[in-house]
Amino acid sequence: MMKAVPFSFNFTGENFIPDEFDNHIQRKLSNMKGQYADQAAYETKLAENDTLLYEVYEIKRPEVEGEILHGVSIVHPGKVGKEYYMTKGHFHTVLETAEIYSTLRGHGYMVMETPEGDWAVEELAAGRVLYVPPRWAHRSINVSADEDLVMFFAYPGNAGHDYGTIETQGFRKLVLDNGNGPEIVDNPRWSPSES
Amino acid sequence: MMKAVPFSFNFTGENFIPDEFDNHIQRKLSNMKGQYADQAAYETKLAENDTLLYEVYEIKRPEVEGEILHGVSIVHPGKVGKEYYMTKGHFHTVLETAEIYSTLRGHGYMVMETPEGDWAVEELAAGRVLYVPPRWAHRSINVSADEDLVMFFAYPGNAGHDYGTIETQGFRKLVLDNGNGPEIVDNPRWSPSES
Repeated sequence: MMKAVPFSFNFTGENFIPDEFDNHIQRKLSNMKGQYADQAAYETKLAENDTLLYEVYEIKRPEVEGEILHGVSIVHPGKVGKEYYMTKGHFHTVLETAEIYSTLRGHGYMVMETPEGDWAVEELAAGRVLYVPPRWAHRSINVSADEDLVMFFAYPGNAGHDYGTIETQGFRKLVLDNGNGPEIVDNPRWSPSES
Repeated sequence: MMKAVPFSFNFTGENFIPDEFDNHIQRKLSNMKGQYADQAAYETKLAENDTLLYEVYEIKRPEVEGEILHGVSIVHPGKVGKEYYMTKGHFHTVLETAEIYSTLRGHGYMVMETPEGDWAVEELAAGRVLYVPPRWAHRSINVSADEDLVMFFAYPGNAGHDYGTIETQGFRKLVLDNGNGPEIVDNPRWSPSES
């Protein structure tokens, strides 16, 4: 039920899960087909267990301008081959809309890019706020060995999600564990968009 | 300088002050003329000292749809007569825009109302998130005896601030210290808007 009046919720527990929410999204390994660079590692891992990679607790609001959609995302720790667990990543359907992230727990990176091929990577850590300006697709990555990456997010109600563009070829940059920790590398599958 | 690329900042210290910001607003007692119910107490207090009541650290963004303006507000503890220190409070100029508050420290209340005269009061406490839907004017109040009330806020870039409506007669409800703590009471100066 969406409320027409002001309302509050509490972050609860070490993962800041809202004590009231409208939607709990769970993304498993099987939901990420084609997203990880090492396809063989993906298939092997999936055959073993359809692991839960990340979760989102959404507080629903009308999906219109002037509202702010918000909630909490949790990316669990782990890797597919050398690539850390990550979200699908998306552009907003209304490209000219921003998103803001306040990291509550853990350590990771936000990988971002524009339709023009500009890219950026920002560090995510507890007590740190990230602003993703309009036009920047974004994917969050947990680089911790054992801790969840937990973020509070907020974005305009009319933004919408465009997953398809990213699903086709991924982001321009990957974050891989090179043995000594996270390293930003080129995505071999990525090519400039035809526009 | 507003950045066209993604950027981050860190909350610092016990009051979560951003380590990068564009604007630091300081509101003193003299900026709140006519806002407190007990005018005699206000004048007496102002004659003693033009106390700092609250501060806002703003991160600037273009004031257009799709952007999210954000920052940190700090309301200091104290009272004018029986009335707790509070912000001016405002409607958004674009009435159909929301605002979201994540309380980082302290304890207080958000007093809210619509142009139609509906009212609501929500508790503010660390670890609690408040959603102020479109159309609701809002004022934050620190009810702690000695601790700052610190909140992270975010709202649509095009919202704007309308202070004038509130300055005329205040909010429908006041929060006063009745000797045993905060109590919500009617504002004797308030009358329904003529619309």
